[in-house]
Formats: sequence, C-alpha cells, structure tokens
Amino acid sequence: MRTLDESALDALALGAAVLGTGGGGDPYIGKLMARRALVEHGPVQVVDPDEIPDDAVCVMSAVMGAPTVLVEKLPGGGEQMAALRALEARLGTSFSHVICAEVGGLNSTLPVVAAAQTGLPLVDCDAMGRAFPEIQMSTPTLIGVGASPMALADDKGNTVVVDAVDNRWTERLARSITIDMGAAAFIALYVQTGAQVKEAMIPQTLALAESVGAAVLEARLAKTDPVLAAVERLGGIVIFEGKIIDVDRRTVAGFARGRVVLEGAQSDVGATLRIEFQNENLVAVIDGEPVATVPDLITVMETETGEPVTTEELKYGLRIRVVAAPCDSRWRTTAGLQLVGPRYFGYDLDYVPVEELVGLRRPK
Amino acid sequence: MRTLDESALDALALGAAVLGTGGGGDPYIGKLMARRALVEHGPVQVVDPDEIPDDAVCVMSAVMGAPTVLVEKLPGGGEQMAALRALEARLGTSFSHVICAEVGGLNSTLPVVAAAQTGLPLVDCDAMGRAFPEIQMSTPTLIGVGASPMALADDKGNTVVVDAVDNRWTERLARSITIDMGAAAFIALYVQTGAQVKEAMIPQTLALAESVGAAVLEARLAKTDPVLAAVERLGGIVIFEGKIIDVDRRTVAGFARGRVVLEGAQSDVGATLRIEFQNENLVAVIDGEPVATVPDLITVMETETGEPVTTEELKYGLRIRVVAAPCDSRWRTTAGLQLVGPRYFGYDLDYVPVEELVGLRRPK
Repeated sequence: MRTLDESALDALALGAAVLGTGGGGDPYIGKLMARRALVEHGPVQVVDPDEIPDDAVCVMSAVMGAPTVLVEKLPGGGEQMAALRALEARLGTSFSHVICAEVGGLNSTLPVVAAAQTGLPLVDCDAMGRAFPEIQMSTPTLIGVGASPMALADDKGNTVVVDAVDNRWTERLARSITIDMGAAAFIALYVQTGAQVKEAMIPQTLALAESVGAAVLEARLAKTDPVLAAVERLGGIVIFEGKIIDVDRRTVAGFARGRVVLEGAQSDVGATLRIEFQNENLVAVIDGEPVATVPDLITVMETETGEPVTTEELKYGLRIRVVAAPCDSRWRTTAGLQLVGPRYFGYDLDYVPVEELVGLRRPK
Repeated sequence: MRTLDESALDALALGAAVLGTGGGGDPYIGKLMARRALVEHGPVQVVDPDEIPDDAVCVMSAVMGAPTVLVEKLPGGGEQMAALRALEARLGTSFSHVICAEVGGLNSTLPVVAAAQTGLPLVDCDAMGRAFPEIQMSTPTLIGVGASPMALADDKGNTVVVDAVDNRWTERLARSITIDMGAAAFIALYVQTGAQVKEAMIPQTLALAESVGAAVLEARLAKTDPVLAAVERLGGIVIFEGKIIDVDRRTVAGFARGRVVLEGAQSDVGATLRIEFQNENLVAVIDGEPVATVPDLITVMETETGEPVTTEELKYGLRIRVVAAPCDSRWRTTAGLQLVGPRYFGYDLDYVPVEELVGLRRPK
C-alpha cells in the first residue's frame, strides 16, 4: 500500500499519456481534476491487486467519448459520483475499491478523483495496459467479466444504467447514449470481486505510468533525452523522428478519427510516416510498410521535451518522435487479437509483434 | 370496473387504430399479442381512473420505435415484463396498476398484455387521446410528471434504465437506445400515483376506442357505412375521399416519415389531398390549403370497409376516406400546442381547430 498525493500527479499524468498512445483525453485536464479532488478530500490510498480481499467489490470509474470534446467541456465534478451512485443503487451494494479502465490521459487520473471523492482505496491496475477506444476491449472481457451493469452520467444531470447481454452490446448502447449526452459521459462499470480483479486486470500499470512520467521529468531536469528515458522504462523503441506535415481529424460517431503524416528528420530524412488513429494511434506505416500496429503501443512525443501528444493535439509543424512498445502479452493471444487486433479496426493486416516488424526493417 | 377478454379485442384494436391517426404500430400484431396473453393468463380487469386509490402506483407499458420495423419483427413476449421488472427494481417498489401511453394501434393493446402478464388491473385512460411520435408529448408532461425513470428492453435481452432531467431528454436518450435495440424497444415509464393519474391522464379512452371499433364492426354487419359510423362516435368529419396516387416513406432516425398524396373521388373529384406523417398523420392539405393539423386527429380509413390504415400500410391505388376529429382540449392550450402543435413538427403553420378550418373551406 502507498499513498498518492498531489506530488505524484505530474508524473502519473505524463506517463499515462505515454501509455495512452494518443488517446484517453487531455492529461492536463485530468491532472487538474485530480488535483482539485486531492486538495479537497486528501490523499488516496493505492493498493496492489494482491493486497485486496477476494470479496472486495471493485468498480471502474472512467470517462467515455471523444477526447476532442472533453478538451472543450471541462466536467463539473459531480458526474463521476452520480455514475457510481447510480450503479450502486442498481446493484444494491456498496463499492469497496476503485479500479482504472485504461492507463491513458484522463482515464488514468479520473480513478484518483473517484477514490478521493468516495474515500475508497484505488487498486493499482488497469484493464488494457494502454488505452483503447471501445468498452469491450479489456482484459476482463477475455475471461468473461461483464462490463455491465454500467452507469452513465452527464453534466446536465441525466443518468442511464445499461444491462446488456454482452460487452459489445454494452459498448454499442453506451456509445449512443454518450453521443446524446454531448459526446462525453462519465461511466461506472466492470464491477468485479477482488478475486476477479487479480485474474482479469493488468497489475501495477499506474506505478508503471508514474515511473515513465518520472523518467521524462527527471531527464528534463538533468538535460538528458526525455524521450529515450521514457522509452527505456517502457521497454520500447523510437521508430521515427520527423515533422508533422498533414493532419486529418474528424469527430465521427463519438470518436476522434483521422490520420497524421510526418516527414522524416535525422536518421529518417527522406522517409514518410503515417499514423492512423481512432482516439488512439492504431497503425504506423513508414513508406508504405507497417512498422507497428495495434495492440502494440504507438505513442507520439515532442522531440525535445518528451511531452506526449494526444491525437487531438496533433498539429502541422510539430517536431515529434514516434515511439512503439510491446503490448501486454494477453493481447497477443488469438482471443486478444480478435478483440483488439488490426483487423477489428478495419485494417487488412495480420498482427506482427512490433519487435519483429521493426527488426525486419532496420537491423539493430 | 369491467372485465376485458378476447371478445373485446377486435373492437378495441380497430378503434384504437382509428384514434391512432396512422401511428402506434400494426393493430393486428397488437391484437395477436393481447389474445395470446389473455388466453394464457385469463381476462383483465379494467378500472376507471376515479376508481383507483390515490396512492396507487401506476406504470405505463408500451413500445417505442418505428412501426415499420415492428411489422417485420414480432416481439417474443418477455420484453414487456423485462422492462417492467427493471423499472420496479430501479424504484424499489411494486406496481399496482397498468396504464396506457396512447390509444393507437399496438400501444392500446400492449397494456392489456402487461395487465394480463402481471395480473394487475388496467386503468381506462391514456396520455394523449390519440397517438403521438415522441415520449414527452403527453398530458402528464403538461402537469410536470416525469417520464423517467424509464426502462427499455429488447428481444436480445438488453435492458436500459434512463433517469433524465426532463421528458425531452428522456425522449432523446430513449430514442437512440431504441435505434440501437433494432429500432423497436419495449418500455415502462411515466410511473404515477393514482392521484396523478386522475389529474394527468385522459379518462376512458380505451372505452372510446372500443366503442368506435364496435361501431365499424356493427356497420359492416348491418351493411351501413362503417366510416360514417366511426365518425359519429368520434365526433369527427370526413374531409376527403379519393385514391392514393403517391406514397413517400422512409425510416429516419427511428421514425417512419413521409407523405401520401390522394386524388379526389365523389364530391372531391379534381382536388388533391396531401398528408404529411411522422409515424402519425400530422398535416392534411387540400389543394395547398391546410384542412387539419396536429394535434387534431387525422385518420385514413378504407372507403368501403372502414378499416383504418396505418402510415406503414399506405400504398398506391388504395381507395380511402380521410377523417378528422378534434383533439382533447388540453392540447389546444398554449402549453399543449408548444408540445404538439404544427410548429413543433417543423410546419410553418399556426394551429387552427379543425372545426374552423373545415368550416372555412366548405360551408355546411
């Protein structure tokens, strides 16, 4: 068990934005919300999954929708509690622990807000080991844990509780509701026992995010290379360095979809990299050849500062490095790839681990 | 108090289709469903609003969506109960009475199904005195009764409970959910005390529907004019007689929208009538002049048989008479017209009562 206070937020939010692969919303807004909650309610206790009792009642607190909208619509603060209370009422139970949906941007700090507001401990784990755009894309889905009953709440005071037959239906119904709610909704879902959390969730990813973020912050102070510092903690690789020459981004059906194109700098002069994204970065292609695909992590970081760049912040002229890292091994199984592999997202590509793709392209 | 059994269904379904002004779904399907429920569970007790205790807990059971879809997708039977049970669970209470949303097609017989399945009495009233396409278009809305908490259930086993800030938001959220559920969902909503029902609902409209339907059936047997028989019970008027020469109908955003054009026969030779509909018939225009508009009733009946024709059954060549009748007086108030007047539906028309419009056009 450890205590999480304001001092950890900079590193957590920064590292989570790296792991968030461009999605999960604006880390700055998440940090502001977490800071406000920690100032008001005091520090949050963070426990490892193996420290919680098997009969713990754990609930995921998160935000759903297009990050592009969240940037413009700072939440009021009561929505998360409204979703949690609606779900408690539906289940006729009280939650004992808060869990994290994804270590990406806003959704890595919102569970801190929920833990502070409810006074419940936060379990150090998440359901993706990165960020993904849809609800059913979670390690709990892989072992048959239901995302619903699920509650949604908006800034107007509307709440909705969904009881769906499977996690894809939960996603489908919740997505439409989220769009109606203004393209962003606060959600409570994936209620699990402690025993289920130990089996289903990916442990210590909040600690990993904090460590990655701290590496970047320390490198900035030490005037060493922040991107390489993050890459080392992450076990990843820099796959491209260059300048953004084109961004195409739309908000479609509640998602921020689009592509970004880079022209190479340094060792990549003359080459072109394209990233396709749907909230998160999904596929990176250099000169027509895929070099990294979902579910592996593809993160864009500012070349000099190592600041991670979310898909809604991509803009012409930005000098960036593109980092890839292996995903959690559960995503590389047949069931994992059916849920989050490149074909699910509409790409006519077989998944090849990023280590192999990059190894093929340029021998180390 | 009276007992409703199978023998009443023909008249009830037929008359409700007349009052349904083209909407509310296929009366034949509703009749089949009610017959099955009455055979299985026995007759239903029907009580007048003034017979129920003030602390009764009344719930509306209905179907939502595009009638065009319901024709193709006969419900399984468990969906209504699923919606009612989900709403009881949400409220932590048991319902004592079933009420009717609208006296139109399917939604006039579905409360019979709910009453039979639950064993609860059915209150003889509805919330519209006709059919309307949207949830907030109800007399309870006029006195501030909430449509939510509201439950939706589909044929796949999904249920959703909506708690919205007002009845327009309930409509908006429920409409999207309904579209996801396959453009038709079973709903439970507008939970009201007995005292509220007495104030908010329009009394004895099921009896009116049964009476109108019986008049048509009796006229057919007596070989008198079934349309005129219905018109007399309804207090309406035949505004046009002719043949359908054009139908344009689409399923848009969960509604059946479109228009039908008639060329005149009998006293209307040479004239053209156009009806615009959105599930229900909304505006009737003869040679460019409006002769009846929502919220007044506009019903299409087969010329010879008096069979009411729903908007999804309109087809080229059909010989029909168009009947108009005054709506409940609550709809003619300022608040009523804001909710269901022609301008709400996008027509640049001031509401004029049908008696005046028809009187202006052709002096009696």
